This record gives sequence, structure tokens and C-alpha cells, in this order.
Amino acid sequence: MIKDILGETSDNSGLFGKDFLLTWEKKVNELEKILLIAEKLISLREKNISSRLFDSGLAISIFRDNSTRTRFSFASAANFLGLEIQDLDESKSQIAHGETVRETANMISFLAEMIGIRDDIFLGEGDKYMRAFGSALQDGFDNGVLSVRPGIINLQSDIDHPTQSMADLLHLKKHFGSLEALKGKKIAMTWAYSPSYGKPLSVPQGIIGLMTRFGMDVTLAYPEGYNLIAGVEDRAASQAENSGSTFIRSGSMEEAFSDADIVYPKSWAPFSVMEERTKLLKRSDMKGLKELEKKSLDNNKKFIEWECNDKMMSLTKGGDALYMHCLPADISGVSCERGEVSAEVFEKYRLDTYREAGFKPYIIAAMMVANRFDDPLSILREVEKKSKKRVGI
Amino acid sequence: MIKDILGETSDNSGLFGKDFLLTWEKKVNELEKILLIAEKLISLREKNISSRLFDSGLAISIFRDNSTRTRFSFASAANFLGLEIQDLDESKSQIAHGETVRETANMISFLAEMIGIRDDIFLGEGDKYMRAFGSALQDGFDNGVLSVRPGIINLQSDIDHPTQSMADLLHLKKHFGSLEALKGKKIAMTWAYSPSYGKPLSVPQGIIGLMTRFGMDVTLAYPEGYNLIAGVEDRAASQAENSGSTFIRSGSMEEAFSDADIVYPKSWAPFSVMEERTKLLKRSDMKGLKELEKKSLDNNKKFIEWECNDKMMSLTKGGDALYMHCLPADISGVSCERGEVSAEVFEKYRLDTYREAGFKPYIIAAMMVANRFDDPLSILREVEKKSKKRVGI
Amino acid sequence: MIKDILGETSDNSGLFGKDFLLTWEKKVNELEKILLIAEKLISLREKNISSRLFDSGLAISIFRDNSTRTRFSFASAANFLGLEIQDLDESKSQIAHGETVRETANMISFLAEMIGIRDDIFLGEGDKYMRAFGSALQDGFDNGVLSVRPGIINLQSDIDHPTQSMADLLHLKKHFGSLEALKGKKIAMTWAYSPSYGKPLSVPQGIIGLMTRFGMDVTLAYPEGYNLIAGVEDRAASQAENSGSTFIRSGSMEEAFSDADIVYPKSWAPFSVMEERTKLLKRSDMKGLKELEKKSLDNNKKFIEWECNDKMMSLTKGGDALYMHCLPADISGVSCERGEVSAEVFEKYRLDTYREAGFKPYIIAAMMVANRFDDPLSILREVEKKSKKRVGI
Repeated sequence: MIKDILGETSDNSGLFGKDFLLTWEKKVNELEKILLIAEKLISLREKNISSRLFDSGLAISIFRDNSTRTRFSFASAANFLGLEIQDLDESKSQIAHGETVRETANMISFLAEMIGIRDDIFLGEGDKYMRAFGSALQDGFDNGVLSVRPGIINLQSDIDHPTQSMADLLHLKKHFGSLEALKGKKIAMTWAYSPSYGKPLSVPQGIIGLMTRFGMDVTLAYPEGYNLIAGVEDRAASQAENSGSTFIRSGSMEEAFSDADIVYPKSWAPFSVMEERTKLLKRSDMKGLKELEKKSLDNNKKFIEWECNDKMMSLTKGGDALYMHCLPADISGVSCERGEVSAEVFEKYRLDTYREAGFKPYIIAAMMVANRFDDPLSILREVEKKSKKRVGI
Repeated sequence: MIKDILGETSDNSGLFGKDFLLTWEKKVNELEKILLIAEKLISLREKNISSRLFDSGLAISIFRDNSTRTRFSFASAANFLGLEIQDLDESKSQIAHGETVRETANMISFLAEMIGIRDDIFLGEGDKYMRAFGSALQDGFDNGVLSVRPGIINLQSDIDHPTQSMADLLHLKKHFGSLEALKGKKIAMTWAYSPSYGKPLSVPQGIIGLMTRFGMDVTLAYPEGYNLIAGVEDRAASQAENSGSTFIRSGSMEEAFSDADIVYPKSWAPFSVMEERTKLLKRSDMKGLKELEKKSLDNNKKFIEWECNDKMMSLTKGGDALYMHCLPADISGVSCERGEVSAEVFEKYRLDTYREAGFKPYIIAAMMVANRFDDPLSILREVEKKSKKRVGI
Repeated sequence: MIKDILGETSDNSGLFGKDFLLTWEKKVNELEKILLIAEKLISLREKNISSRLFDSGLAISIFRDNSTRTRFSFASAANFLGLEIQDLDESKSQIAHGETVRETANMISFLAEMIGIRDDIFLGEGDKYMRAFGSALQDGFDNGVLSVRPGIINLQSDIDHPTQSMADLLHLKKHFGSLEALKGKKIAMTWAYSPSYGKPLSVPQGIIGLMTRFGMDVTLAYPEGYNLIAGVEDRAASQAENSGSTFIRSGSMEEAFSDADIVYPKSWAPFSVMEERTKLLKRSDMKGLKELEKKSLDNNKKFIEWECNDKMMSLTKGGDALYMHCLPADISGVSCERGEVSAEVFEKYRLDTYREAGFKPYIIAAMMVANRFDDPLSILREVEKKSKKRVGI
């Protein structure tokens, strides 16, 4: 099953004209380039220079799961470059089996430039769907149906959440001064307690799949049974080896937090629960889902001590590790009785997490620019030279 | 009743400043102009030239029925010209009786340029609604409420589906090389079996109402009881006479396919069923609707042999007629057990049907340009001369 | 309670960089400036000059209540200036308690320029929510989360409806020739019968809160029990005193209409009913709401004679006062059996009310320009000098 999921991987190496589905399909220097483009775009905005690279064109979003943050990030990125957002509301359509994906992909894309897809509900489905969508677009392009091959950006799949992890990486680069400075830093990607159930695995998978490539010592900690997709964990291990860092699996939040420079405590559902849930969802077994929910919440409760609080933070390097979260966090005493993080810790790092989130629109815009332009940094230099005002005349 | 429907016709002759509701309200040379504009727009996009003719302005879409293809076609067309799409979601409004249409039409249009309406559910209503909407806009414009009279484009009514039929015509023009080449070609517009019910009549009506004006020999075939609006059938007959071609009504799919150059097999509900359904819908008679559905589906089943398959295709000219469909098609063994077309035939022509659909955004954009600019081809020549890049700087 | 509501008032004086929540937070000359900007924008559009002041940026709308008119006005205004509309659909988000408002405000605003909020359902909530939203944005801006502090425009709160009242003021300015000409004119803001219930107080409050500052003699008339927020009535009284005009409260529609130059008959719910309704809504007490509705409608019926009809109009100055309404009006014999206005009176002034509504997009656009540009009139003069075509090339 796991092999199956990763086995889907089609070749997306490179940036120009290539879909962005998993960070580990890209080379390290390509990922670095995305960061540089994003930073350039931030600087252009700060200088009030318009970065409208498109005079027309659609950026289509397909959200198969609710979203505010990513929806607005995608919309912001598209608009920033001159693309108009058009949402495909599947409740008004009928995307179902292979045939229809193939058809719909083409039908909506005649004047599209970029397509963002969130599909993280069904384990073993999201990444598959994005690749099927991409194949359909390629087929349409190769056969003269589409005059442009729109690029796809993964806005969260069952496997990876690259716009999140890349925004996180940019946040770390800014925070520590450089990518170089991240080498040897310890990041604790840990499970945390939440009174909710069925949270996707894509964030922790995205973090361990990305940070192990930048020389960071990654500790992944979770209670027994809360493992991620095995293939992703294994990949993280081998990547760490290649980058001269370490990847440690642990069953203790304390161990993970010990001497950590960065902590990323976040809840997720166990892989096996997600597998079972996927099966139940597929046959709309409401009773089964209810039971699974109850069982899962009960199981979660055994690990209610997995909370990022002052005591836990005191274990980190100088008691002062950088706290990260993709938001929204389950904050004890604020959004729930007991959650992932204490109110005190969250409040201390609240603005940091906001700034972390603030990189996402630029990361998405950078992925768009890199998909569409062969030499993105040089075209942005031209944009800067032209210096058209973004606001004002 | 039928007279009533066609009797609604207000004068929409001409293109500049005129709504586009029925192709037969336009002269043949006006329709040809729409094709030329569309082709010019395609060529501009292929040359990466921006065809932004509007620096601001809204293109409002009103969909009183679900839509993916047409929704995206309208959005694409608007964006391509620089207009922003704004959808009027009637569930958040209350368009009902005459009074309110008059008011709403004005209230949403203060800064609108174009309005696209799909209203194909109620027989005898859609076209009427569009004309009421147009009158309201005209009234507002004449009385200084609106400084621009937005143009209306019929995105499918109970009578016609001009953006579809014109896209189909452009597809034929491209396929056969010229409009001239279409003269004397036989097109079979035939009913086909579908396990669904209540499909609108607008596509077959649009096809026979348009193709008979371009010298094509049109055969309209359907099982007994599946007739279209009589006035439209009659009009097709007289138009064929005027253009020196033929319009034949037949009760046999085989006869229609025999020696055809083009086949367009597509399901629709019988006129009388649509009439009854309209009445039931209006009084929300759910039980009556259920019964009608059952009765209709049972009746459909009598004609399950009306399928476009290899055997049927072998009757066409050289066994190799061009298959057309407005999509989505009911494909036997793919989207249903038995449907309009066999999987083999559909797959052979699949890319053709995608390309056919691909003309729709440009046809809509052409209708917009023709509505707003007195001499659309000359302004597009200026656009080409200016050669502003669409993508890039 | 009332003190509480008005006590919320944070300092929004000034235009540049300031939220527009209540007209009485702005100086008279600032309000006059908004009108001048709106008039300039109208003139630019009439001259086909593009007023695109933004090359990118989002204008986010948050509608916590249904809307067509204001939704399209906001969208039109944003698009007219070059901003793209992005709607925050809270059903796909979870804005609830303080914590989340703070977070959501920042999360959606990374590339936003303007935010329009309608929140008029809960008495004591709407204005509060907008201020909480504004504080969150300010906090994010001050702490480097947001590089731009988006401006907020009140699209209707529980207290004021400034885009409506300012559009009304511009309508009056145009109708009577100048603001100067409004001095000493009598406007009757009166309750009127409606067979509906729970209509917000913001329009009458907005009118008495604004017109008393421009030297108009304002008579506010309503049946016993239909009073507005006391603080707003009191403010109107003191404002009238300051501007050398009068503010009269009356229990008689006839008295209000007598010798009036302008009449604004419109239904609203009594303050106490709105208070009770708010409590019931908050605890989702459906039975209580049903009972309150019945009681309220029964009470309304006692005042069915409060209808703006020919007889009532004959009392006005020369029998020819200007009739105003924010639309949609409850028109007797058209949209209901008995309503706010007779069909005859409404029809006579129908186009006037449409023109009145037509100022709203420009008022909103003017508020946006004034929020973003230090010297808005001078930048619009530059726009005019540049004379980029809005339509055409």
C-alpha cells in the first residue's frame, strides 16, 4: 500500500514547466531557487513595484477540503502576478472517475496558467489525483487541445504539503539568517495532543521530508501507533544521511524537545486510522466513522500530556527554541480545554507563527513564476528595473 | 405556447450594442464576423499578445443551472479581455417576478460591461427572462441609471445555445478548412439514448437553427415524441430552403447517419415532457416529478438502440464522419451502462470533442468584443500592432 | 448596554489609513472630501479614463448577512480601482471568539488592501466585530506580520450604514445642486409598515447621524416602541444643534411628512425587539424566535397605516418631496399586500431610487482611495492627466 502511494511518483524534477507536488522531487538547488524568488517578490512588494507578469490568465483552485489560509494564500499569490482566481466548486461539477478527471482537467484549462489543488482527505488518493490531473493536462497539451500546459501546485495532498513546508523553511532561513545557519540545528517534529481526529499527515511528512535535506538534525516523535507513511519516514532517514545530518525517531516528546533549536508540535491521526477512515469514507459508512472517531479520540486522550507548554519548552536549547505551527493550533484553554500548546507558549510565539504563515503567498507565487519562466530571477530583475508602481500611478 | 416562446423575440439584429440571444436574430455575415474575431483572438493568444481591451469592468454570470464548462468558458473569455467575473448567486438574492428582475438588473450593473445568463430549466422561461433582463438594462440606460448598457450573452436558454453552436461552427470551419467547404456537407443531428432525463432542447435546436444557414444538409432524427419546439424546427426548414440546402426530419438514426459527413448524437427530453416538467417544477410537485422521471426513463429505454457505435458510424461517409458532442457525453460502459455513444467511438473522437469545446471561450470573447466595439476587427489589429505581451514583461 | 455599544468607539478620525466605520467619527470636511472623490471617479468613468490605482491587491469582503446590492457595489468599486475581490465565506472557515478573529484577520490579509464587512444581524456585535478586526490588523502591521495595514469599510453594522448614507447624501447633493442647498431642507426619516421583521436599524441611524451635520432639519418619526439606539438619537440631536438645524422626534408619519423636502420611509425593528432577537439568536432558541416574530409582526400590523402613499405625499412641500429608499422596498401590491410604499409613489420615484443606489459603488471606491492615498484628489488629477483608456486601447 505504502509503496503504491509513493510508486505513483511521476517525474517532476526541475521547475520550469513542472508540477510542484512533493519537495523531494526537486533538487536542493531548485528549492533554494524557490526561496530566492519568494524573497525577491517580497522585496518587490516592499518597494511598491508591481510584479504583474501576466496580463491575463486564470489561476484555478480546487479545494476538496475546507481552507481559509491556503485559499487566501493561493488567491493572493495569483493576484500578485496578475492571474485571476477561479474556483472549481466540485459540488457544481462531477469529477469522479478517471474519465471525468481527464475531461474536466481539459475543459477548465483552455485559458488557465496555474492550478492549485488541495486533496488531503483520502489517504492514497490526493497525490494520485494530482498526477492524474497533470497527465490529463499534458495529454491535452500534447494533442493541441491546450495551447499552454498549466502548472499544478500541490496545496496539500495526503503525502506532502510543500507550500507549507517551503514557507516554514523560508521562515527558518529568515530567523536564523541563512540556510547555511540551519546546518546542525535540531528540529523536533512532534505529535501533540488534540481533541480532534483525522488531521492529515502531510505537515509532519512535509517537514521531515524537507528539513532533512538542509542539514538539520530532525527528530520525529510520536506515541506508539502514530507513525506516518513508512516510505516518507524512510526517505527522511536516507536524506538525512545524504546531507550529513541525523533523523531520529522517538516515542518521547521530552526526548525530541531536549536541546532542540526548533520545535514543531502538531497533532495528526495515526496512519492506520487514516487508512481505516479512508475505507469508511469511501463506502460512506457513517456508523463506522463515528465508532472510529470515538476510538481515536479515546486513544488520543492517553497522550494528553503531549502538550507544548512551559515545562516542555524549558527542555529546549536555552529554554528558548523557536516554536512553529502551520495554524490554526489547538490552544489549551483558548480553542479547547486541552490541546497542542499552552496559551502561554502560543502567545509568546504567536506573532512568529503569523510571520511564518505570511511567507506562504510568496512561496506559492514563487512556484508559479518558476513554473512559467525559464529564468525567473532574471525576469524579476527586469521587473525591478521597469519599476512599475503597484499602488499609485 | 410555442408561438408564445418565439413571439417573445425582440429585435436583436446587429452586433454592436446588441444582446446575443439567438443565432437566427443575427445575419449570416454577422455570425461570420464572430468567427473571424474568435480566430483573431486565438491567434493573439498564440502570439502571446495581450488582448486586454478593458482596464476595468465586471462580467457578471448568472447561472440558474449547474455548469462547469460554460462557467469556465465565460470566466476565461472575460478575463482574457480584462473583465473581472462576478457571479450573481441567486440563493443570496431574490430575483423573482418582473418587478425584481427590473430592479436587480440595474442594481448589479452600475459598473458592469457584460452579463452572461444560463437559464435552460423552464421551457418558455429562459429566453423570456433574458429579454426581460435586457429591457431592464435598456430602461436603466435610457434613464441615466446606467452609464453603460451592459450586453447580454445567452449561455443557454430554453430555445438556443448560441455559444455552443457557434463554437461547433468554428470547429467545423477549422476541420473542413472553410465555411465554403461546409456547403452540401450532411450533418446528422440525432437524438441518442441516455439513462438520464430532462436534458434541455437547446443544443439540437441551436444546431439545426444555425447549420441550415450555412448551406449544410441537416437531418434531424429522433424517436416518435421527441420533437423539438415546432417553431424552431420550422425555422430550420425555411432557412435550409433559403440557403439552398436541405432540412430533413427522420425517425431513424440509421437514416440520419447514412452518408453523413458529421454526426451529432445527443440525448434530449421530448418537448411535451419538458412542458409537463416545467409545470411540475413551478408548483414544486415532487411526486409528479418522480412519476414523470420514471415514465420518461422507461420511455427512453425503448430507444436504447439509438447509440452511436461502430456499426452506426460505418453507415457514415467512408465510415469516417466527424463525431461531435457538447460534452459531457453519456459513454456506454464508462459513465453509464448504456449511453449516447460507445466507448470505442468516443475515444476515437475524444480529442476532437475537446478541441471543439476549446473554441467556446473564444466565441464568448468574440461576442463580447463585437458587443462593445463598433469595428472589432480593426481594434484587434491595433492590439496586434501594439503587441503588449500577455505573459512576461 | 447602549453606552456599551457606542463606548466601543476607537479613534477613527481622519481618512488616510483610517477605517470607515461610522460617519460621525469623521469631520464634515472629510465627508465632503469623500463626495468630491466619488464625483471625480464618476467623471473619470464617463470620460472612459481608467482609474486603476492598484496593479494588484485584494479587496476582501466578509458578508455575515445576505446581500446583492452591497456585494456588487463593493465588487464594482474594488475592480474599478484595480483590486481583485476575494470573498471570505465563513462557512468554510471558523471565525468565532476573539482569538480567532485576531488570527483570521491576519491570515487573510497578507496581500490585502481593503476589507469590507457587513455584520448587522446581532445588536451590539457588528461594530464591535469590525473594531476587533481592525485592532487585529493594526497589531499585525505594528509587529511586522503585515507590510500594509488594510483599511476596513463598514458595509453595514448594527449602528451605522455609512456607504448607504453617504450615497444618499451624494444623491441629495446632486438633486439639490450643492451641499449648501441642503441647509434648512426638511428630511423626514420615518418608520414604515412592512410585513417582515428584524430589519436592521442601521439605515435610519445612519441617516439621522449624517444629515443632521449638514444643516438639514431632520424629523425622525416612528410608532411607540420603535425607537433606535438611544445614543444615536441623542447624537443626532446634539449634531443638529451644532449645525444650526433641528432634530425632531415624532410619533406621527403625517407630522414628519408635513412640508418635508425629502422623505425616507423605511421599516425597521424596534430596538427592544432587536435586543431580544439577538439574545435568542445567540442561544439558537428557534421557538423563542418564532414567538418573537409572531409578536413583532402582530405589533407591526397595528401601524399598517404608516405607508408612503399619494395621500401622505400630498402633505409634503408642494406635494412633491423627493422620495428616498435604500432598496429593496416593500411595495404594496407588488412585493407584498401592504408595505412601506404604494406602487404609485414608488413607480414615480423608481428611477430616482435606482440613481440613488448607483452612487454606492463610487462612494465605496472613494473611501478606498481616501484610505490609501494621502492626497486622493491630487492623485486623481494625475490619473486624469495620464488619461489611460478604460475601454479600448
